Amino acid sequence: MSNAPTRVIWILGSDSDLPHIESGLSMLDELSIGYEVRILSAHRTPDPVDDVARGARERGVGVLIGVAGGAAHLPGVLAARTTLPVIGVPVPSAFGGGLDSLLSIVQMPSGVPVATVSANKACGKNAALLAARILSVADADIAAGLEAHKRGMAEAVLAKDAEVSQRYAN
Amino acid sequence: MSNAPTRVIWILGSDSDLPHIESGLSMLDELSIGYEVRILSAHRTPDPVDDVARGARERGVGVLIGVAGGAAHLPGVLAARTTLPVIGVPVPSAFGGGLDSLLSIVQMPSGVPVATVSANKACGKNAALLAARILSVADADIAAGLEAHKRGMAEAVLAKDAEVSQRYAN
Amino acid sequence: MSNAPTRVIWILGSDSDLPHIESGLSMLDELSIGYEVRILSAHRTPDPVDDVARGARERGVGVLIGVAGGAAHLPGVLAARTTLPVIGVPVPSAFGGGLDSLLSIVQMPSGVPVATVSANKACGKNAALLAARILSVADADIAAGLEAHKRGMAEAVLAKDAEVSQRYAN
Amino acid sequence: MSNAPTRVIWILGSDSDLPHIESGLSMLDELSIGYEVRILSAHRTPDPVDDVARGARERGVGVLIGVAGGAAHLPGVLAARTTLPVIGVPVPSAFGGGLDSLLSIVQMPSGVPVATVSANKACGKNAALLAARILSVADADIAAGLEAHKRGMAEAVLAKDAEVSQRYAN
Amino acid sequence: MSNAPTRVIWILGSDSDLPHIESGLSMLDELSIGYEVRILSAHRTPDPVDDVARGARERGVGVLIGVAGGAAHLPGVLAARTTLPVIGVPVPSAFGGGLDSLLSIVQMPSGVPVATVSANKACGKNAALLAARILSVADADIAAGLEAHKRGMAEAVLAKDAEVSQRYAN
Amino acid sequence: MSNAPTRVIWILGSDSDLPHIESGLSMLDELSIGYEVRILSAHRTPDPVDDVARGARERGVGVLIGVAGGAAHLPGVLAARTTLPVIGVPVPSAFGGGLDSLLSIVQMPSGVPVATVSANKACGKNAALLAARILSVADADIAAGLEAHKRGMAEAVLAKDAEVSQRYAN
Amino acid sequence: MSNAPTRVIWILGSDSDLPHIESGLSMLDELSIGYEVRILSAHRTPDPVDDVARGARERGVGVLIGVAGGAAHLPGVLAARTTLPVIGVPVPSAFGGGLDSLLSIVQMPSGVPVATVSANKACGKNAALLAARILSVADADIAAGLEAHKRGMAEAVLAKDAEVSQRYAN
Amino acid sequence: MSNAPTRVIWILGSDSDLPHIESGLSMLDELSIGYEVRILSAHRTPDPVDDVARGARERGVGVLIGVAGGAAHLPGVLAARTTLPVIGVPVPSAFGGGLDSLLSIVQMPSGVPVATVSANKACGKNAALLAARILSVADADIAAGLEAHKRGMAEAVLAKDAEVSQRYAN
Repeated sequence: MSNAPTRVIWILGSDSDLPHIESGLSMLDELSIGYEVRILSAHRTPDPVDDVARGARERGVGVLIGVAGGAAHLPGVLAARTTLPVIGVPVPSAFGGGLDSLLSIVQMPSGVPVATVSANKACGKNAALLAARILSVADADIAAGLEAHKRGMAEAVLAKDAEVSQRYAN
Repeated sequence: MSNAPTRVIWILGSDSDLPHIESGLSMLDELSIGYEVRILSAHRTPDPVDDVARGARERGVGVLIGVAGGAAHLPGVLAARTTLPVIGVPVPSAFGGGLDSLLSIVQMPSGVPVATVSANKACGKNAALLAARILSVADADIAAGLEAHKRGMAEAVLAKDAEVSQRYAN
Repeated sequence: MSNAPTRVIWILGSDSDLPHIESGLSMLDELSIGYEVRILSAHRTPDPVDDVARGARERGVGVLIGVAGGAAHLPGVLAARTTLPVIGVPVPSAFGGGLDSLLSIVQMPSGVPVATVSANKACGKNAALLAARILSVADADIAAGLEAHKRGMAEAVLAKDAEVSQRYAN
Repeated sequence: MSNAPTRVIWILGSDSDLPHIESGLSMLDELSIGYEVRILSAHRTPDPVDDVARGARERGVGVLIGVAGGAAHLPGVLAARTTLPVIGVPVPSAFGGGLDSLLSIVQMPSGVPVATVSANKACGKNAALLAARILSVADADIAAGLEAHKRGMAEAVLAKDAEVSQRYAN
Repeated sequence: MSNAPTRVIWILGSDSDLPHIESGLSMLDELSIGYEVRILSAHRTPDPVDDVARGARERGVGVLIGVAGGAAHLPGVLAARTTLPVIGVPVPSAFGGGLDSLLSIVQMPSGVPVATVSANKACGKNAALLAARILSVADADIAAGLEAHKRGMAEAVLAKDAEVSQRYAN
Repeated sequence: MSNAPTRVIWILGSDSDLPHIESGLSMLDELSIGYEVRILSAHRTPDPVDDVARGARERGVGVLIGVAGGAAHLPGVLAARTTLPVIGVPVPSAFGGGLDSLLSIVQMPSGVPVATVSANKACGKNAALLAARILSVADADIAAGLEAHKRGMAEAVLAKDAEVSQRYAN
Repeated sequence: MSNAPTRVIWILGSDSDLPHIESGLSMLDELSIGYEVRILSAHRTPDPVDDVARGARERGVGVLIGVAGGAAHLPGVLAARTTLPVIGVPVPSAFGGGLDSLLSIVQMPSGVPVATVSANKACGKNAALLAARILSVADADIAAGLEAHKRGMAEAVLAKDAEVSQRYAN
Repeated sequence: MSNAPTRVIWILGSDSDLPHIESGLSMLDELSIGYEVRILSAHRTPDPVDDVARGARERGVGVLIGVAGGAAHLPGVLAARTTLPVIGVPVPSAFGGGLDSLLSIVQMPSGVPVATVSANKACGKNAALLAARILSVADADIAAGLEAHKRGMAEAVLAKDAEVSQRYAN
């Protein structure tokens, strides 16, 4: 939750996918980037999906994130109705670990790209970080926040390295 | 081409897919089933796609056939906007022979089915025959036409069998 | 269970697949469409399978639904013995999440299509809804039932959207 | 072609698959094993397929070979109608190089096995050699023929080895 | 366990695969076919594997069954050292449900076929039934046993059908 | 080629991939977005790759596009060394049509996202359009250019539709 | 843990992968080969990864082992910065059992090979044994240790064989 | 061809695979590493394969390279009969671009690793470079040759970069 103006809208095909994005919402909170979360299905509620996509730019939104599994059409449907960047998040499924979700999102036809991120547990966080990278092109504060996050990740790895390499040293 | 009233609408994402359906158009002609062919993209022309799907039933259309490749959303987009049966035709692609097209079409979420047919050279013909089977539920003429076609296929196989089994007999 | 005349026959290769179709039986009940359920194996009981398929149309049945996994030949065997529309339901399996089931059902040869639906938990419900869409071509009551179901799905999504978007608003 | 009594029946879903089995027919000729070749489709001509399978054992046939691609049901249909060993030959297809054919043939349910061989150019020859191995269990002449063929293969490899290892020696 | 002379040898790469074949051992017992079970690895104990394969025919053995997972070379190694029919049983693995095991067994080169059966829980039983089919070519008792087993399977399915179709009838 | 300041850098692992991006370069020219093209390999020239990625933001660059095939590490290597958005373009390969390239690019670990686009002939154009969408968040001219391009695509489809639907009308 | 000089360095992308390599550490201990374990991420800590790879040869290290999952770039990044042999260990993942990890590691471009081992539970042990085989080329003690290990594996299999073949003998 | 003592033996399952390794032979020539080339099939000539593997170490050979496609058992068979490092080269095939070859080689069981390289056109060259890296652990001349080759690769890329970045500069 955030008091910042909405720069990112998450659209999920089903509220059962909320757990996949929680790490992403925290990430945006940490970077002070405002967002909204919507539950809207490309197939069951096509009209509200259109409205969200078509109205986003003039509201000052910078990025739409579509989260879906299976024949995961939602990100592509969003990308067809806006010229803002749309991030597609393939939800892990039982079918080859999410191969259906991944291919349905990434293999978009010429002219309508979707920025697809990985189909795994990290999918929500990486979608948030990609949104932040996109906003950082014209926002020095977000760029600074990303640099700090990057240093933090490196420091966490190095701390683990110090501990583990010591444990196995003779 | 046919003078019969339109019972089937083919919607193709690109006119480059026309060759895949020509055998299907001939099949409908042979069965005297009227049809239209539209070139409309789920991603580049979402509004006309909506109009075709939403207006189909009251025009007396019985089946919509969506033909698409890659992140092939077109059949699912049609199925979201009508309660008529929608046939999905995955166009063979370079990616695993069309695995992306097939999965994007068939793996629809609960509530919005697409009747998917095979992703191969026969895809157009089989879509036409499935449309005819659907219309035949309430149309004895089409049912009779399908029976005749079925007998014809069997006779063609048996003629081949006679020739080949003779060729390899001693 | 239903008192309506049988318009749909479900044929399952094994009674262990019954749980996959329960949501589909409820769906047909909700739409007041009569059905029967048979346990018949294409490989262990080929003759009764033939009898069911060959006798279906004259009994007034409109759709056959074949449910099978692995080398899932049942839907294709049915389609070879009737000109009614046959829906194929690939049961999720351990092999790539059901990739074997899906390909065995959908990749039918030219001339004998099977209307394949998704290989996931929703497979029974989507098969029922596709059967209803097929019957709705010539049945205004079923068409009305499907429209009502469609509105219900949309309303359920919008209710979730209201709740979730509120939860994450500041 | 062979004057020997028929011990093997090849059943092909389409005469377009004949080229895949020519090396297999030659192999059986070389081993003096009699055979027949039939063109019969599990889906277009189900009844003659049944007749061939059901009558095979009492005619003295030892092995049935089903050759098919895509949703390749033919070998399984044969295996359901005889207790003789049935060899399944997945014809290479455009779909993952024949992955659909292979899975549709090999993933048979409990109780009805099909002896599946490789999906590649060698598929006909390997089917013939597997049939010969099966017949050799009770036929010393065929066993001797197989031993000779095996020695011939080894000698051909060793001749190549001599030539190539010499070519690259200094 | 059986007092009959050994007609079938099972060779397993690891005793952890024994559970996969228990249904197969019972099947052979039911058909009164004698067998042995060996634990031998193509890669860890290549010499004893060679000995078993090379000595099998003169001991009166009719079929070798190689059971393996992953880079499952065992069946192919056996087939290279005998002209008896070799059945390959791909053990289900974590990798695509056993896709690695299946491809490593079935995709044998020209000249050395392996009779591959399904990669699933039924794999042991189907291997046993395929071995029995092979032996039945020259053994009327086994043929009769297989016919009885086939009738039993059909009766079991029909009994389930009676129960289930009644349960869902109105 | 463009006189505009460089907002996008294309980095290709090999100049043999240039044909894949030509449609993308034209697209950027059409939208008056300046770019550079570099041939640098993550594995053969790691140091210059680092330099390009690390120096990009302060030069005013907004997006990096990494183009690679096989174990396509280049986009991920770039993303590890900048906080700018990095687009990954999987080059179609012989291996499952580019499945290796796609998975190597998209399945990035938590913390370091790559915005992956489709692995097909359109990959260069879609990468360019995604870059433009990203830059358009803070650039009204590019947003206007994208809207014009979107209208042009729709008009092209509708022109095809008019022609084709007329051709098949009776 | 070992007092021997470091001949092998394990580099893991995450300490959550430590369980995968424990059998490998024991294996090296058993063969008296010294090693170090580092936790370093190709994407989060690129610079220390470079330092380890570039400094390895002059410290007397013989083999680097990179352990990673998903878009598993670590082994390739190491191989780009040393001319020592680099072993890549694909960690099993949810995606096709590790297909993404495997392809990302093995499909390296021309000029920069990675010695990839199997993606399964045995991955750590096999990496250790491959490292030992590499060191054994110029180290007779390690060669002797490997021969002893090989004999031990064979004896363990033969003991199982004696027990199991006895259990199933009549 | 080389006058140097044999340090590497290439074993190919078929001489039709020679074109895949020619770039690898040139690479070894360039590094002055002696080699032999043998054509031997794991399945058609198992005994000579055993002899080559078992006698290699005492002849001073350091690395065996097994080249095979499909159920590519050759590298594993070699690894089972020596404790030297064995490199497995999966030959590209029609089946998923070589997925069968790759999995059959890499998925070796615990205790018997094969060092697998990429399944693509570069496979021969990368096998040669991996062999050289292995030999370089104890051979400073080869290490120096590899460093020179590495510099050469980098220079070739940088020359291309200079040309291409100039071509697209304004």
